[in-house]
Amino acid sequence: ARPRVGYFYSGKKPAQSIEESMIGMKVRDFQSMPVVVTEQISVYDAICHIFLEDVGTLYVVDNDSYLTGVLSRKDLLRTSLGGNDLNKMPVHVIMTRMPNITYCKKQDTLIDVAKKMIDKQIDSLPVIEENVDGLNVVGRITKTNITAAFLSLGDEHEL
Amino acid sequence: ARPRVGYFYSGKKPAQSIEESMIGMKVRDFQSMPVVVTEQISVYDAICHIFLEDVGTLYVVDNDSYLTGVLSRKDLLRTSLGGNDLNKMPVHVIMTRMPNITYCKKQDTLIDVAKKMIDKQIDSLPVIEENVDGLNVVGRITKTNITAAFLSLGDEHEL
Repeated sequence: ARPRVGYFYSGKKPAQSIEESMIGMKVRDFQSMPVVVTEQISVYDAICHIFLEDVGTLYVVDNDSYLTGVLSRKDLLRTSLGGNDLNKMPVHVIMTRMPNITYCKKQDTLIDVAKKMIDKQIDSLPVIEENVDGLNVVGRITKTNITAAFLSLGDEHEL
Repeated sequence: ARPRVGYFYSGKKPAQSIEESMIGMKVRDFQSMPVVVTEQISVYDAICHIFLEDVGTLYVVDNDSYLTGVLSRKDLLRTSLGGNDLNKMPVHVIMTRMPNITYCKKQDTLIDVAKKMIDKQIDSLPVIEENVDGLNVVGRITKTNITAAFLSLGDEHEL
């Protein structure tokens, strides 16, 4: 931490403690946009989406736009090795389905989300809103977001 | 944070501040084991290593065990789509080479490493030791390690 010599008014807002900053870090403040595909698209097209959108995970939705599955880069790489015709295989054959999807909500803390990621060994979680008929995907939160939060904690408190 | 009522001796070491904890977080305390392959192995075998070792990145070394390249899950997925014979293509054709490899040392702080990851948009860094003839790979540090560090900061300070 730099010494605070304090001769000039820095123009910054009064600092909160780093503990308060950390507890106050919510999913909604750090989440990224979700990249969503439908159940019928092919594995080949899903892989193209991974590159075009530069994400590690795709979320699969049904015709009502409710979450039904998750596709990781690892799932897709495994399938690409399997000698299948990737243009003919739809993603719903290989995706992880509910109820095996771990998700979070935008008011959750980053500490809770980080704990889920480490405990379940997953790289990202969909951010969802519950609806009577299903789950709407409104964001995604990744280890990149957590890394950015860790960095911002250091920056904000001038470590 | 829970109130510290302090009627009982908790047995814990005297707490340092969360700022001190964060500045004190070094690569050596959070790094994982590196997974290393040689330049001659095939892309197919490299993909198998990714699954067997459950990592996102492989480090490529020459015959003297010095770092010469990095292979990400994304590099391998891209190549698997390209219609190549993955058994015949050696990894040195597709790997990222020096001097384009971002690395760190075990005495670096996690804040510095997190900054490199975010700035350069990479998921992991090799931890190296410099030698007169080259770089020895002694570890890897990933966004999973940073996420674990973020979580341990919260745990240690009972947030």
